[in-house]
Order: sequence, then structure tokens, then C-alpha cells
Amino acid sequence: MPLTSFSAAFQNPAGSPIRELFPYLSQPGIISFAGGYPSSSLFDSLGLRHACESAIATPFNCLQYGATEGLPVLREALVELMAARGIATGINDILVTTGSQQAFDLIVKVFLNQGDMVYVETPAYPAAIQGLRLAGARMTQIPVDCDGVDVVRLAEILSQANETDLPKFIYTVPTFSNPSGTTLSSQRRSTLVGLALQYGFMIVEDDPYGELSFTEERLLPLFSIGASTSKSENPVVYLSSLSKTVAPGLRVGWMVAPPDVLRRCTIAKQTSDLCTSPISQQIAVEYLLSGRYFPCILRAKIEYKLRMSTMASALHKQLGDDLKFSEPKGGMFMWASITNGCDAKALFKHAVTANVLFVPGAAFYPENPDEMTLRFSFAAPDSEQIKEGVNRLSTAFKKLFI
Amino acid sequence: MPLTSFSAAFQNPAGSPIRELFPYLSQPGIISFAGGYPSSSLFDSLGLRHACESAIATPFNCLQYGATEGLPVLREALVELMAARGIATGINDILVTTGSQQAFDLIVKVFLNQGDMVYVETPAYPAAIQGLRLAGARMTQIPVDCDGVDVVRLAEILSQANETDLPKFIYTVPTFSNPSGTTLSSQRRSTLVGLALQYGFMIVEDDPYGELSFTEERLLPLFSIGASTSKSENPVVYLSSLSKTVAPGLRVGWMVAPPDVLRRCTIAKQTSDLCTSPISQQIAVEYLLSGRYFPCILRAKIEYKLRMSTMASALHKQLGDDLKFSEPKGGMFMWASITNGCDAKALFKHAVTANVLFVPGAAFYPENPDEMTLRFSFAAPDSEQIKEGVNRLSTAFKKLFI
Repeated sequence: MPLTSFSAAFQNPAGSPIRELFPYLSQPGIISFAGGYPSSSLFDSLGLRHACESAIATPFNCLQYGATEGLPVLREALVELMAARGIATGINDILVTTGSQQAFDLIVKVFLNQGDMVYVETPAYPAAIQGLRLAGARMTQIPVDCDGVDVVRLAEILSQANETDLPKFIYTVPTFSNPSGTTLSSQRRSTLVGLALQYGFMIVEDDPYGELSFTEERLLPLFSIGASTSKSENPVVYLSSLSKTVAPGLRVGWMVAPPDVLRRCTIAKQTSDLCTSPISQQIAVEYLLSGRYFPCILRAKIEYKLRMSTMASALHKQLGDDLKFSEPKGGMFMWASITNGCDAKALFKHAVTANVLFVPGAAFYPENPDEMTLRFSFAAPDSEQIKEGVNRLSTAFKKLFI
Repeated sequence: MPLTSFSAAFQNPAGSPIRELFPYLSQPGIISFAGGYPSSSLFDSLGLRHACESAIATPFNCLQYGATEGLPVLREALVELMAARGIATGINDILVTTGSQQAFDLIVKVFLNQGDMVYVETPAYPAAIQGLRLAGARMTQIPVDCDGVDVVRLAEILSQANETDLPKFIYTVPTFSNPSGTTLSSQRRSTLVGLALQYGFMIVEDDPYGELSFTEERLLPLFSIGASTSKSENPVVYLSSLSKTVAPGLRVGWMVAPPDVLRRCTIAKQTSDLCTSPISQQIAVEYLLSGRYFPCILRAKIEYKLRMSTMASALHKQLGDDLKFSEPKGGMFMWASITNGCDAKALFKHAVTANVLFVPGAAFYPENPDEMTLRFSFAAPDSEQIKEGVNRLSTAFKKLFI
């Protein structure tokens, strides 16, 4: 088909840079720190099997089309889950989505015209960058440091922006971010909400990892701060998912948003996929009501914390002179910078030869990437594999200087 | 939120006109010819329960993220299904989608810029009209008569169109269309493909109902005709779904398209929902391989044919002077025109009072609706309900003249 048949964004679209690493995953014996997948070995497969059997035992609940908004029983269960996270909602504040990826896609459809400005925490989740790019958005990178989005820099950028460069929204994963692993500090949360109210933009708070905390510290979601700060409308839209806590295969995510946003996203979802699979939704309900959700999270937190500590110790010991990184307080990711002047793509080539994978940081920047950065995931490999993987990384580093 | 925060299409979007009828469905004792849902009583709930249990028995196949393209085992099963419909494909020609609604949404994303022209068979499936409207497409209505899309009129419109008014694609349900119930004749199929090749536009062939045939007649899908007619690239993209043949709750649809289209739709799907629920996909695989699919279709065809005949007889007998309609050769819908000069919205009000529902035809037109038309679905109510529903319609008609 001639290229001009396609829409402007799709004449020559690049695929996901992370998916380009997929072929290497079939190398025999490879150890991968590259994936963004939760650990399959931590899925509560017995609990999910029971949930699945319960769901299909009353087939008429889940074989027909469901309401676009989501099954009421699932939204009730999510209201409970939100309450445990410090977010007060009712079922009419929640839209069930086909993963939180769809929730973001709906936001893009509902808010963005071609050329609209969006601020993006950087480094950022690549599928958010890609979604914005394909929608023809302009993006401004807001840097992240060890306390999350740099709100001082954000305030500067906002103060210097002319009217057309003000953002429709800022996209951030404030808790255990992908890829940076960082968490937005309590004070910065308030500042960020204040800036959103002052300049009239929305905050898209993406929170798939918040429950996977390695410490006792609990920070309020931006959504709660927005609700208690704003006298009129909460500037925060909250997205979450069962993919990192129960199983990605459900494709069950959700959005909490003000009524005028939610109504439009529901209309957008009618033409996106009519409704999220009622079978998946019913399995999710049965699982959430089974009492196994929080024990399952607890097990995941303990195991991920162990894997993170194992990785951090091994990296410190073997590559402490070559890599700079912080230990995340939760989630699945660790972000690192190479300090010896080499770039991550050169390291990647040697890593592939040494049979270990990571993601070079360029994938996480809308533009002007920091080529010295890289992302490790400690979620999928077990502790022994992590130690061996770091050994191999060490070998790869040595090859850089031969 | 101020309206200007939203994208142009979503500043004041109308919801689905059919969903506006939902509140009436809770009227006690209502008989509905309005819904577009398949009959819940025809779901093979035992077979689906077994499929579900088999799927979850090997949880690692379906709890993790899957490939965006769809599970290879499902695509293999769909290749077989396509072969039975006269379409020769391989697994790399198929993209699994979250219902065929998503397949259409991906086509819209990949092909349309704001203001692009699309031709739409009219009357048409409302969620297609809505999807095109929200994408900012311009639409030209191509009328449908008892043999489907009027290709003579189409040829005229094409011959008079200037360059910017030529369509990116035409949207059609060529077999047992929703809402018209009509089937594009064999000769018109060839003519339509010929026009697409001559003028360089694509045909989006939406085929959710094709297997629900009431006769022995089998017409080749447009896709097959395109494949055998075109020397270079097939101008037809084929969409289908298990929603009308197995169960909508699976949300499993698919697209068959040339490689350059499929590659772009796969990229668009990455940012839409990453992948269709692998659990749903695995249930679909187990069901398709169980040998119960074709017997299940056979049962549905027999029952839908009975319901259609019952409706047609009752309408002829009681409303033969007031309504004009043709008997569809398959599918779920019958389209009618009121011949006594009354409009369908006026009739609808009396019908609600008489406790029977249908959809006034205006919902199925992008613009300039024929207000005398209406859609009946005979899929959901059983034969007794159909007879009683037509009695009530007859009462409603009488009220029109009081």
C-alpha cells in the first residue's frame, strides 16, 4: 500500500525499542534483566485457578457483553482496594479498562489534539512515550532525580512557557517508577499538585507498582492529595492495574477520574473495545474477594525485595566503580548510569555476547537520551540468576576496555 | 474541567444512541427487539466451562503478558477457521484483537488523519459511525438496498469525486449486515473489489455474522475475491469475531490484512492494550479445538432462523400494511420501513408504553436519517416472546392514529 494511504503518524512508525530485544531472549542460557514482566513464579496460580472456576460456574455473568464502565461487582471490589490505598471513591468514579495501557490510550484520545503539549517525567515508560508520539503530541521532558520528578525544574519550565507550550497534562509514575525506580517525595507530591492547580493542567498518575513496597513507608497517592487540596475539581487522574500484583494475563486495569473525564473516556472506550472481557473481570472479582490478594502481594514484596538487594549487593561489589545507582524502595526496576565514560549501547553488545541482557536507557527518553544510562529489572530472574547475571555483566564491562 | 481541556472530538461527544435505550430494558415484562446481543440461551456454557478449565489448568500459558500479535496457537486455530470460510492465510496474516471493535479502532488509528474521507454503507453499524466521527473523519453515505451496497451509486459517487473526496476506505458488513440484514450479491462483490482497485481505496470487510447463515448459499468473502483479483496487494482488510458465534464475553476478534497494514496495526495495538487477554485467548483456543464450535453454530443458525421466520410471519400478518421489510438470509437483524407515513420515533414512544422495544433507524445514519426506518433484532427473544412482541407493536401502531 502506498505510504500516503496511512495516517501521518503511521507512515513510518517505529515499534517498541524493548520488543527489539525479544530475539535475544531465545539465546540458550540467557539471563535477562531486560523484561518489564512480573515474575511468573510468583503468580498465585492455584488461587487464580479457583477464581477462574468460580467465575465460569455462573457463566451468564461473564459470557455476554458487559457494561462499558465495567462489571459493578468488580468496581465495588476496586473501591475497597482504592480505600486501602488512601483513595476515597464510589463505583461511579471508576472505569474498568483493558489493562492500564488502555486507560492511558483513552486519556490520549479524550484530551489531545495533534500538536498539544504533554509533559513527561524522564526517563519514562516507553509505551507512554510511544502513545503520545503516535497521537502527534509535543513532549517536554521533566527530569527525574532520586526523589522523583524534579518539581523545581518543572516550576521553572512552567514559568517560562508561553500559553501554547503549557501542557494538557503531565505523565508520571510517582511510586517505584518504571524505569527510574524512584518515588516522588511527600513534599514534592504537594508541590506537583499545587503546580497543576496553579497552571490548570492535569496530572496522569500511573500507579501499577505502588503496592509492591519494600518498606513500611506509605505515601499518599497524588489523587488523594489532589482531592483534599482542590476546592473544585481534582486535577489528578489515577490509573492502576492488576498486571503487576495479580497477573498481566487478566488485562484488567482501571481509571479513577472526575465525572466529566470519566464520561468521555467511557464514550471513547465504546469505540475502542466496547467492554473489557467480562470473563477476565469476573475472575478478577473472584480473586479479589477470595482473601488471597494481600497475602499474594506480601509474598511478591518479600521476594522482589530479596532480588533487589541481591542485585544491588552484587553490583556494588563487582561494578561499584563503573555504575552509579540507587536502591529502589519498591517495584521492579533499578536505574543505573555508567560512570566510566562508556555508553550503554556499547556495553549491551558485550553483554549479549556474555549472555546477559538489560535495556539501554535511550528507550526511555522522548529525545536527547542520556546514553550512559540503563535499566535493570530484578523481578523475573531469581537470586542465583541475578548473581550470575552480574558476573556476566562484569565480564562485559571488562570487554569494553580491550 | 473546562471544555477546552478536551480534544476537539471530545468537547461534547454524544454517547451511543442505542445505549440510551438501556433504561427501558429494566421495565418489568419488556420484550426487546432492540439489542444487538446474541442470545445468552444459545451460549454453549458447558463447552465454555470445559474450555475455561483446560485453559487455566496450564496457567503459565495464560497468566503472563502475551505477544501483541496474539497467541500463536490461537492464530493457528483461526487460520483453520478462515480456511473454512474460503480465506487462505497463515498465522502471520492474523492479528488477534480485543473484539473486532478494536480491530476497527486500529484501522482508524493507522489510516485516518483528521478530515480524511471514509465511505460508509448506510444504514451502518453505529459504533463504526461513532468511531469515525470521533476520529474527525468525513463520511459519505453509500446506500444499501436488498442486495447490499448499491455499487452503481458507489461508482457514480466515485466518478464525480475530486481527489480530496476519494475515500481512504469503505466500511461494509457484506454478509447479513447490521442493521440492514442484507447480503451483498456475488456480482456486486466483484464490482466492489474492482472499484477499490480502480480508485485505490481499501475495503474494510466486517464479518461477525457470516457463519450464521439460514440457507445453503455461501458467498466468497470480499477478502478472497480481493486476493484472487489483485495482482499486487489485496485491497480488502477482513475483520471478524467470536462474539456472535461463541460468546461476546471472550472479547476475542481478529483482523486479516496485508503485512504493511498488519505491522502498523500491531504497533497501534501496543499502545492500545499491549495484548488481548491471554486467558480469553486460551479459552478461545480450547473451545475451537474441542470440536464443539461448528455444532454450536449449527444450533444457533437453526434457532435464529426459527426466530426470524416467526418474526417475519407475525409482522406480515399483523403489520403487513404498515411495514415493508425483507427476510434476511442469516444473522440477527431485520430492517423495516414504515409505509404509512409515520416516523419511527413516534412509534417508539407508543411501543415503550406497550412494553416492546426496537431501535429507531436514525441511530444507523451518519447524517440525514430516514426517519421511517427501524431495526428489529430477532436474536435475543424466543419465539413466544417474538409473537407477543409483535402483538404489542401492533397495539403501538394503532395508538399512532388515535
